Amino acid sequence: MSIEADIILIQRLAAAADRVVAPFFRAQLPVEQKADQSPVTAADRAAEATIRSILETDRPTDGIYGEEYGISRGQSGRLWVIDPIDGTRGFVAGRPLYGTLVALVEDGRPVLGIISAGAAGDRWLGCTVGKPRAVLNGKPIRTRPCPGLSAARAGSTHPLAFSASGHAAFQRVGRSVADMIFGGDCHNYGLLAAGQLDLVMEENLKPYDWAALVPVIEGAGGLITDWAGKPLTLASEGRVLAAGDRRAHAEAIERI
Amino acid sequence: MSIEADIILIQRLAAAADRVVAPFFRAQLPVEQKADQSPVTAADRAAEATIRSILETDRPTDGIYGEEYGISRGQSGRLWVIDPIDGTRGFVAGRPLYGTLVALVEDGRPVLGIISAGAAGDRWLGCTVGKPRAVLNGKPIRTRPCPGLSAARAGSTHPLAFSASGHAAFQRVGRSVADMIFGGDCHNYGLLAAGQLDLVMEENLKPYDWAALVPVIEGAGGLITDWAGKPLTLASEGRVLAAGDRRAHAEAIERI
Repeated sequence: MSIEADIILIQRLAAAADRVVAPFFRAQLPVEQKADQSPVTAADRAAEATIRSILETDRPTDGIYGEEYGISRGQSGRLWVIDPIDGTRGFVAGRPLYGTLVALVEDGRPVLGIISAGAAGDRWLGCTVGKPRAVLNGKPIRTRPCPGLSAARAGSTHPLAFSASGHAAFQRVGRSVADMIFGGDCHNYGLLAAGQLDLVMEENLKPYDWAALVPVIEGAGGLITDWAGKPLTLASEGRVLAAGDRRAHAEAIERI
Repeated sequence: MSIEADIILIQRLAAAADRVVAPFFRAQLPVEQKADQSPVTAADRAAEATIRSILETDRPTDGIYGEEYGISRGQSGRLWVIDPIDGTRGFVAGRPLYGTLVALVEDGRPVLGIISAGAAGDRWLGCTVGKPRAVLNGKPIRTRPCPGLSAARAGSTHPLAFSASGHAAFQRVGRSVADMIFGGDCHNYGLLAAGQLDLVMEENLKPYDWAALVPVIEGAGGLITDWAGKPLTLASEGRVLAAGDRRAHAEAIERI
């Protein structure tokens, strides 16, 4: 399977999810709490079911790992990782920053990813097979230079959701940056890839929360690692640090 | 001057500001820090200058109070209060939730207000002269019922920006609600008016941050007061509590 065919497919997956999700936006959906206290709605389930059904038809030998419907093992060694709605809390509040995330993982590393923020009209695509590259709505993007933390504009979704040790590390970094915005979920990482933010720091992310971000950020010239500066793997603890410039990234790792 | 004429005018002001601001969005603007550490850009100044110039022509005897260019006294007793870009931190990060806020204040009370979130495509208008009413993109809106804090979905822009005593009160309320989203600025109050959020609690707001919100929220059937449950006035301390249902509002006041 050529990567070009996968790029066409992943855009179809995102477009299909956008179409399924749009009618649910601002529609006063019932919200259930899952066992991990994260919210889920009929829109999350419908979007993931749509993506899975396309993949089952078009990539029958690939595996699938989705937030809502779990793991279907494949034979090809390739794995599609899906978060049908990242930012469900904001989604149910009618905030137009949520996104559908899909990643293709090969040999444990995400190589192709899409962040489709349908209500915001922002769709990011990144690929690290061949020359790393990323686009926002079809236009090439690059992260921006940032000489260090004191110049960094940072983002983090849920500052009160860190563990105790995680929050202490977050505060050390947070006190060093030029500015910080909250909320945003996957949309913050897209803004970082597009050279609009310099740093995003979060904890307790699941693989489906971060897999699609990796090719977008790396494709745009940025870094996304765990809090020790190591590549994220499916076994990572979910502590994520993304930066557009390796100088700001290195300084944040020191503070952590 | 009839309120109908003011309603037509305030929509012109918002449309003019949206047109001025749009080209600056995601344009890598230089950001200055003002004396109060809040950020300002050329877009904030251009939008306020545009609004003021229309008002000076069309309402020459009214006063104007804007975030960037201060107070111009009038003779009519009426005052237009302007925040050209509420949510400048998010605006400079390319996040499409910022808004232009304009309010008409009579006898110290905002009676007409607009929240125009141009990049999100959301424009709220509220009026409390005559029968209170509010619309989102022209469609009538109402806040939703919420029997108490434990059922409330809440929002707050910058949880680390509270004073020490304010943060303690915020935590007491925050621990009691069903869920909390961060970031959002004026957009959260619009979502509350539209029945998408139940509670917004913030501190250190200036009159230009909250004046336009009052007619939108009251027009939609909600409440917006200080933390003692008293009406906001130009002399208020900037502690703001908004709720869609008075039961959730009363319970939050108890916790505070």
